[in-house]
Amino acid sequence: MKRVGRYTISLETAPKIAGYASVVGKKEKEGPLGNEFDRSYKDTSLGESSWEKAESRLQKEAVEIALKKACINAKDVDIIFAGDLLNQCISSTFGLRSLNIPFLGQYGACSTMAQTLALAALFVESGTARIAAAVTSSHFCSAERQFRLPLEYGGQRPPTAQWTATASGSVIVVPQTTVIAQEQVKTKSSKETDSLEKTPVITEVCIGKITDMGIKDANNMGAAMAPAAAQTILDYLSDTHTTPSDYDLIVTGDLGYVGSNLLLQLMEQEGVDVSKVHNDCGKMLFDRKKQDVHAGGSGCGCSASVLCSKLLNDIKSGKLNDILFVATGALMSTTSSQQGESIPSIAHLVRLKGI
Amino acid sequence: MKRVGRYTISLETAPKIAGYASVVGKKEKEGPLGNEFDRSYKDTSLGESSWEKAESRLQKEAVEIALKKACINAKDVDIIFAGDLLNQCISSTFGLRSLNIPFLGQYGACSTMAQTLALAALFVESGTARIAAAVTSSHFCSAERQFRLPLEYGGQRPPTAQWTATASGSVIVVPQTTVIAQEQVKTKSSKETDSLEKTPVITEVCIGKITDMGIKDANNMGAAMAPAAAQTILDYLSDTHTTPSDYDLIVTGDLGYVGSNLLLQLMEQEGVDVSKVHNDCGKMLFDRKKQDVHAGGSGCGCSASVLCSKLLNDIKSGKLNDILFVATGALMSTTSSQQGESIPSIAHLVRLKGI
Repeated sequence: MKRVGRYTISLETAPKIAGYASVVGKKEKEGPLGNEFDRSYKDTSLGESSWEKAESRLQKEAVEIALKKACINAKDVDIIFAGDLLNQCISSTFGLRSLNIPFLGQYGACSTMAQTLALAALFVESGTARIAAAVTSSHFCSAERQFRLPLEYGGQRPPTAQWTATASGSVIVVPQTTVIAQEQVKTKSSKETDSLEKTPVITEVCIGKITDMGIKDANNMGAAMAPAAAQTILDYLSDTHTTPSDYDLIVTGDLGYVGSNLLLQLMEQEGVDVSKVHNDCGKMLFDRKKQDVHAGGSGCGCSASVLCSKLLNDIKSGKLNDILFVATGALMSTTSSQQGESIPSIAHLVRLKGI
Repeated sequence: MKRVGRYTISLETAPKIAGYASVVGKKEKEGPLGNEFDRSYKDTSLGESSWEKAESRLQKEAVEIALKKACINAKDVDIIFAGDLLNQCISSTFGLRSLNIPFLGQYGACSTMAQTLALAALFVESGTARIAAAVTSSHFCSAERQFRLPLEYGGQRPPTAQWTATASGSVIVVPQTTVIAQEQVKTKSSKETDSLEKTPVITEVCIGKITDMGIKDANNMGAAMAPAAAQTILDYLSDTHTTPSDYDLIVTGDLGYVGSNLLLQLMEQEGVDVSKVHNDCGKMLFDRKKQDVHAGGSGCGCSASVLCSKLLNDIKSGKLNDILFVATGALMSTTSSQQGESIPSIAHLVRLKGI
């Protein structure tokens, strides 16, 4: 553990991701990343009696699959960091209550995947935990009725609005030196394809500050969150004396199309060109032309499911070697919006490498 | 950092509390701890236009006073852990947005003070942060209208109901070796009273698991949370091979009168008698006979303001030397209750010593 500059923490042991998993709904499965997910449901109620219960199950299953892929039992996990968009984070508390793992609830809105992953990595780095888990989720139907209008109302969405992903992503973090059963199995089978696989590790973390530029339109989250993403990326590049070209990808989540354009402009104003290496989970999850998602995907589950499928898959296969995962969150509620407040936002950064 | 047993983390450097503060409303000021708080407001709106904005200000002021008492500037704080009861934790995000401190939002319901304090201490112990802050709050009026009924409705409260505290507490944690300006000033003045003051330090942390015994009555949180408190205390005693008599005080928050009695029973069933050293923040904050609070106080601000007044004052004065602070939280929402769900609960433990 070493602090670098004002805001960045360097993880000198580079904890590794022993397992990860994504569980998604129908629309996400039909999108461009459809083949990358671990599990999907055509019925987005998952057969449950409420959307909230369906979302809880997404989260529970993501953790269970990630643990299974890591060949780790729930009882051996020292800590789980979890959070979601629902009031009092009930997807997490109800979804995970049966796992019997020490639990610290997190609230970072759509930045939760970076927040929980950062904490899991920091706990493993410092030896606070031997095995740490991170998970988050969102569900289009539970989010719509809580934040906007009942689905039955059929409200119109403006072009700047984003589509809350029905998805969950979970990651299991362990010390790099831990040899997990999964790897032992591989060594035994010694398939060539397996031996070529890289291991995703976390090397740096940058925790964001709350940024509020006065945006009040709850249907334009991308604009509210772009300044937070810009701030965290600039802080990180300054702390580490690096430039965007040092990375294979700087991936934000979830600014969508409107917020991504704003981010590029804000960075350009500061003399930093990220356009060549930037992408956004809200742009990656859905096909804008075919899937009618307006400004792109959003929700805690959006960046979580993109990280826990395409991004980590590409790190394992060697397509990506060094990326900055910068999840962004809009920290308002319906009450604050009704009271005329602006939207405070935040972005946390996690650097992931394949070794 | 050393793991002790299955669930406990020993903080070998024992980070110290450099400053702490409590800000409360009128009813709390009129209670038995009235003289212990740093600031109180007769007008519980704090002159703000909404209860939520009033609660945000409680939290901001608690942090500012704690920082001032520690002689530390906000710009030097590496991380703040904050959370509250409101949907999407808006007391924290709106209250703290102007401080410009790296922020990690926490959700542990009424266990939030132990959760944020534990994380702040762990971050300082591991060197992840040089200065870490923890804060939480609750407000009777914002909680009532969000979780129960509008105040204007004048709903009756059953005898098992607890009274949400209008209060905030904040703690600033630094390495024990850090000599803070406050202490330098003291050394210079070298008053005898000052030199006798002890320093509160955090020596152990035990993160709880979600416990759900099927209680569904949202007006009986004490009963829902008592099993979680029992579980965490039992885990901790087992991990550390200690007994209740090894501590000056085992203080839960906020089980109130109903939950406290249940806790003693649950512990007795396990052969552990905590009755001689147990108290509860929900019992300490209000005068049950004079203040009509039914089963006692509750809310994130209850255990936070009791910790950041009476408890830490008593550690500094030497009245208490070794205590277990066990904050408890009920992790449900109005939506989960309306869907017929039970109330999952959690309790986190922090051991505090005066040295």
